[in-house]
Amino acid sequence: MAKEAKTLDDLFYDTLKDIYYAEKKILATLPKMAKAAQNDELTAAFEKHRAETEGQVERLEQVFFMIQRKVQGKTCDAIVGITDEGAEIMKDYKGSPALDAGLIAAAQAVEHYEISRYGTLRTWAEELGLNDAVSLLQETLDEEKATDEALTKIAESVVNQEAEAA
Amino acid sequence: MAKEAKTLDDLFYDTLKDIYYAEKKILATLPKMAKAAQNDELTAAFEKHRAETEGQVERLEQVFFMIQRKVQGKTCDAIVGITDEGAEIMKDYKGSPALDAGLIAAAQAVEHYEISRYGTLRTWAEELGLNDAVSLLQETLDEEKATDEALTKIAESVVNQEAEAA
Repeated sequence: MAKEAKTLDDLFYDTLKDIYYAEKKILATLPKMAKAAQNDELTAAFEKHRAETEGQVERLEQVFFMIQRKVQGKTCDAIVGITDEGAEIMKDYKGSPALDAGLIAAAQAVEHYEISRYGTLRTWAEELGLNDAVSLLQETLDEEKATDEALTKIAESVVNQEAEAA
Repeated sequence: MAKEAKTLDDLFYDTLKDIYYAEKKILATLPKMAKAAQNDELTAAFEKHRAETEGQVERLEQVFFMIQRKVQGKTCDAIVGITDEGAEIMKDYKGSPALDAGLIAAAQAVEHYEISRYGTLRTWAEELGLNDAVSLLQETLDEEKATDEALTKIAESVVNQEAEAA
């Protein structure tokens, strides 16, 4: 590949492909986590976030459209690693009262990856003057932060129950 | 391996090994990022955080000691994936004015992984009644959040310069 001077536009597009791949991976993972969860509130939280994630994928598609670039994903090693760790928790802690606490930790690692990516993309979109993209990315960023906070609340009650059961 | 009922203590120890491995990996990565950065302020931020990370490793060792478990790391697929993406940025954006923006994005993905892990560990330490560990984990969590905020500030100025140079 010939070396070309890469710009912020390229970085924005590359990162958009990265998070698009990540969102698709998360869409495939959330139903497994919802099924594995023992606590009903946690199952509901994963199901709610799955529905939200579908909307987030659509927003990303709109951003691809705004920058007139092809909608495509690019393997995101980070989300592969993070979801592999989640899968390991599901296997190693199956049947354990600590399973839900582990699932929440795995989900919060996912949320924080997304928070970092959407925060970055929003900053770059501002600089690139992509005002409509800024709004869409901000909307998703707010949802990810709200999900993270909801998981923290569930974690506190789940972990309490686990301690009481021990 | 015989199935045993895993508890929150196990989960705490497993996650401690995960972040211990991650911190060691970050210690090895930050000098490369500091060297690659074009902006002096960014180089200084990476160097400062490297020194901080040494203290964070020591705090983790103290927590292992508090729970009377062996100090050891366990391959953390998440941090491997996140730092691989950072290495890819360094390669693909070498010589590009967008390099620094990419480095900051990579570093913020690392910070957010750590924020999620330390937040989780602190919550669990509270539940396990490990009060001294809570303080140590909170101290590191505060540092990671401060580093993330400092990177956001540098990102805004770096991205502005890049846009002006384009």
